[in-house]
Amino acid sequence: MQTDLNCDLGESFGSYTIGNDEEILPLVSSVNVACGFHAGDPSVMRRTVQQALANHTAIGAHPGLPDLQGFGRRALAISAQEAYDIVLYQIGALDGFVRSEGGVMHHVKPHGALYNMAAADASLAGAIAKAIYTYDSSLILYGLSGSELIKAGQDIGLKTASEVFADRTYQSSGALTPRSRSNALIKDDQTAIDQVKKMITEQKVISTDGEEISLTADTVCIHGDGAHALEFAEKIRKELQETGIQIKTI
Amino acid sequence: MQTDLNCDLGESFGSYTIGNDEEILPLVSSVNVACGFHAGDPSVMRRTVQQALANHTAIGAHPGLPDLQGFGRRALAISAQEAYDIVLYQIGALDGFVRSEGGVMHHVKPHGALYNMAAADASLAGAIAKAIYTYDSSLILYGLSGSELIKAGQDIGLKTASEVFADRTYQSSGALTPRSRSNALIKDDQTAIDQVKKMITEQKVISTDGEEISLTADTVCIHGDGAHALEFAEKIRKELQETGIQIKTI
Amino acid sequence: MQTDLNCDLGESFGSYTIGNDEEILPLVSSVNVACGFHAGDPSVMRRTVQQALANHTAIGAHPGLPDLQGFGRRALAISAQEAYDIVLYQIGALDGFVRSEGGVMHHVKPHGALYNMAAADASLAGAIAKAIYTYDSSLILYGLSGSELIKAGQDIGLKTASEVFADRTYQSSGALTPRSRSNALIKDDQTAIDQVKKMITEQKVISTDGEEISLTADTVCIHGDGAHALEFAEKIRKELQETGIQIKTI
Amino acid sequence: MQTDLNCDLGESFGSYTIGNDEEILPLVSSVNVACGFHAGDPSVMRRTVQQALANHTAIGAHPGLPDLQGFGRRALAISAQEAYDIVLYQIGALDGFVRSEGGVMHHVKPHGALYNMAAADASLAGAIAKAIYTYDSSLILYGLSGSELIKAGQDIGLKTASEVFADRTYQSSGALTPRSRSNALIKDDQTAIDQVKKMITEQKVISTDGEEISLTADTVCIHGDGAHALEFAEKIRKELQETGIQIKTI
Repeated sequence: MQTDLNCDLGESFGSYTIGNDEEILPLVSSVNVACGFHAGDPSVMRRTVQQALANHTAIGAHPGLPDLQGFGRRALAISAQEAYDIVLYQIGALDGFVRSEGGVMHHVKPHGALYNMAAADASLAGAIAKAIYTYDSSLILYGLSGSELIKAGQDIGLKTASEVFADRTYQSSGALTPRSRSNALIKDDQTAIDQVKKMITEQKVISTDGEEISLTADTVCIHGDGAHALEFAEKIRKELQETGIQIKTI
Repeated sequence: MQTDLNCDLGESFGSYTIGNDEEILPLVSSVNVACGFHAGDPSVMRRTVQQALANHTAIGAHPGLPDLQGFGRRALAISAQEAYDIVLYQIGALDGFVRSEGGVMHHVKPHGALYNMAAADASLAGAIAKAIYTYDSSLILYGLSGSELIKAGQDIGLKTASEVFADRTYQSSGALTPRSRSNALIKDDQTAIDQVKKMITEQKVISTDGEEISLTADTVCIHGDGAHALEFAEKIRKELQETGIQIKTI
Repeated sequence: MQTDLNCDLGESFGSYTIGNDEEILPLVSSVNVACGFHAGDPSVMRRTVQQALANHTAIGAHPGLPDLQGFGRRALAISAQEAYDIVLYQIGALDGFVRSEGGVMHHVKPHGALYNMAAADASLAGAIAKAIYTYDSSLILYGLSGSELIKAGQDIGLKTASEVFADRTYQSSGALTPRSRSNALIKDDQTAIDQVKKMITEQKVISTDGEEISLTADTVCIHGDGAHALEFAEKIRKELQETGIQIKTI
Repeated sequence: MQTDLNCDLGESFGSYTIGNDEEILPLVSSVNVACGFHAGDPSVMRRTVQQALANHTAIGAHPGLPDLQGFGRRALAISAQEAYDIVLYQIGALDGFVRSEGGVMHHVKPHGALYNMAAADASLAGAIAKAIYTYDSSLILYGLSGSELIKAGQDIGLKTASEVFADRTYQSSGALTPRSRSNALIKDDQTAIDQVKKMITEQKVISTDGEEISLTADTVCIHGDGAHALEFAEKIRKELQETGIQIKTI
C-alpha cells in the first residue's frame, strides 16, 4: 500500500518569504510550484525547481488566479476561456524552468480559489483539463477527490490524482467543510493522521455528521509553512510508514 | 537575395488594444509576440499565436521587462540572473501556446529596454543568450546588429539574426542614434526604404555624419501600429520585391 | 427641470489609450476618473484631472477592483474590509491630484464589478459608503438607482445620486437586465433617449416585461469610448435641452 | 540636544509579512509607511496608520517605484514628470488613511531606488519636492544628508530633515559607500552607535578613508526587520538617552 504526500512550494515573492521549502521538501513525494500569478516569481520558480530536482521530488505546476494580494484565494469571475489561457500560460512558464534544469514536469494542481471553483464548476473544470491535456497529455491532474475537476480530467483522458486533506473535515456530501465554519479544520495532529490513515486504507472518511462516506484518496495535501507544519509532516510520514504505507509519488 | 521582415505583435492587454495585428501579419515574415510582462496577456497571446500560425508566419517570443505601465521601455536595473529568469519564464509561457496550437517557436527577440540594455551590457546579454540556449538551442536569437547580444548568442552557439531598423538613423559607431536626438528617426518613407535596400544589398549604411559604415542586416524591424505602419509595410515589401529581394524568415 | 450627465474618464493606462476624453468632456456635467486599479495610472490621472478642471466639469473618483486585465469587470470575492480599504486608497490617490491642481472632489462612483457587487450586497455597500463618508462626508455617492449602495449611502448620511442608464433595459424588479441576455442593451439611439426623457421627467421606466416601474433618476450614465459615443452624447444633450431639461451636475 | 529616529513600516503585502511593526513602533519617533507600490497594500496601510496613531508616532509617506518584486530597490528610468505623478499618487493614497483615522501626515521620505536616484539627480529631486510641496507645503521632506533631494526641498520652501544612517559607512565625498562594496555596512553595534552619537553631537562622521567630514544629521534611519533590529533599536535608544540626547520627531 502506498500514498503520495504533496505540498505547495515556491510561494515566496521578491523580498517576501513564505514557507520552509528546504525543510519540507525531503518529507513529501510531490510538490506543487507556484507560477507567478498568486505567488512565486521567475527567480523563486527557478530556485524551487532546482531544489525539487535535487531532492528527486515530483514537480507539478500550481497555477492560480492573477491575484498576488489575495494569494489566489479570492474567487474571481473568469470565463472558461480565461481559465484555459491562464493555466496554459503558467504551465508553460514553469515547464521552461523544469526543462531547462533537465527535469520533467509530473503533474498540475490548480491553486486556491481556482481549485475550488474548478471543483464545483464543470465548465471551468473542462477548460483547465483541456489546457493541461493540450499542453502535455501525460501530465497528471491533481484535484479534489470527487470534484468536477477530477471528472473533467478523466473525461478528456488525463491520468488524475484524487486529493484529500489531512487537516480538513468533510461533510456528508463529500465536500470539504467551508473554512468559514468553526469545525472546518482538524486541529489535533493525531485526529488528522487517523483520518488520513482511514482515507488511504479504506478510502473512507467520517463526515462531520458522523456518517462514513466513500472517497478516493490518491494523494494527501500537507502544508509547508509554519514550524508546526514541519513537525506534522514528520509525524504523519512516520505513522504512515509504520502502518505499512509507502510514501511515493503517483 | 532575401531578407526577413519582422514585427512586434500581440501587444494588446485586456480591454486595451494596440496594433493592427491582423493586417500586418500577412505583410511580414516573422513576428515577435509579447509575453505578458511589458504587454500582452495570456488570452492575447493565445489569439496572436493562432493568427500567426494561420498566416504561416514564423513566431518568436518577445520577452520584456516587468513594466506594463512603461511598456517595457524604461530601463530597470535587473541583475543578470534576474534577466535569465524573466526571459526563461516568458519563453516558456509563450511556447505553451505555440506548442499547444501545434506550432514550433522560431526565435526570441528581447523587447524595448531589455533589448537595449542587452545590446550594451555583455553580462545581461550572456544571461539572456544562456536562457534561450538552455531552453532550446535551436532557437534563433534576434538582436541589434553589432550588439553584445548578438555576440553573446554566437559565443554560446545560438544561430543569430542581426536586426536593422528601417526608420532609425545610425551613428558612425554603428549604434542607433538615441531617440532623444532630433535626427533619430527617418520620417520620409523613401529614405527609409532606400536605407533598408542598401543595408540588405551592401550590408552598409550611411551614418548621420555621412560616413559609410558596415553592419549585418539579416532581419528588418518594421512597426505594426498606426495606419501609416501598414502603408509603409506594403510599400517596403513592394520595393524590396521589385529589387529582387525575397521576403522570407530566417 | 435638470439632470446630470456622467461619464467614465481617464481609463487609459501607460501606452494604452481608451476613450475620447477630450471630446466627451464638454458634453457631460460630471466625470468619474479611474484611480489606477481597474484602469488609469498616476500620469493619466493627473492629466485627466487637469482636463476636467479646465472644462469646469465635476470630478468624481471611480474606484474599482484591482484587476487591470479584466478592466474591473470580473467579480472578485473581497471582504467588506477590503472594499473599504481599496476604496479609501483610491479616493485619496485621486484627491491628491484634484487638490494639488486646486480643485475639489465632487463625488465617488464605484466601477464595474465593484459597482454591481455593491448594488446587491448590503455589507459591501456599507463598507464603501463608510469609506467615502469617513474620508469626506460632503462627497456625493453615485450608485445604481434602487440599489443597496444608495441605501447604504443614505443610511450613513451621504448625499446620493441615483444613477440610470441610457442604453440598458430594466427588469420589472427594477434591476438592470444582465448583460448576458440578448435584450440587455438598447441599440437604437432614439429609444434610449426616449427612455432617458421618461426617467427624468416621470421617474419611471418601462421594463422588458412591459410594466411601468418607478425609479429615481438623478444622473444619467453615458459612455465615452467609440465614435458613436460622442455622437450619442451630442444627440442626447440636444434632445434633453430641447425638452427643457438643463444639464448640470448635482 | 535631540534627534529623530525613523523607521520604514507597513512593508507587508497580502499574505506576505515583513518586519516587526508592532515591536519597533514604540522605539522610534517617526515612521515611513509604504504606499502600495514597492510594498504595502491598502489593508496593510490602514492597519499601519492605526498602529502608528495609537503609538503617537509621527507618520510619513514612503513612496517608492512601482516594482513590488524588486521591493523598489532596482533603479527604473522614470521621467521627472512620472516621479512627480507617482509620488503625488502615493502621498494622497496614504493620506486618505491618515485623515480618515483622524491623524495628520507629518513627512514624506522616498524609498529605495527612488530615494537614491533623487539623491543624485536634481531633476527627479525637483519633481519629488514639487509633488510634496504642491500637495501640502507643511510636510517635511526626509532625504539623504547633503543630497540633491534635500537641496530641492529647501529650494521650493519645504522644511527638510537630513537623514543619516547608523549602519552605513560614508565616503570622503559625503556619499554613502555603495552596498556593492564590502565595507558598506557597519556590522558592530557599538561602532554604529558611536558613529550616530558623533553625527548628532558634532554633525561629523569619519569616512572610510579616515577623514572627518561634515554632514547634517536631523534624523537617524534604523531598520525594523529581524530580531536583531529590535535589539539594536533598544540599544541605540538607551545610549542616546544616556548621552543626553532626547528622541523626538522633527
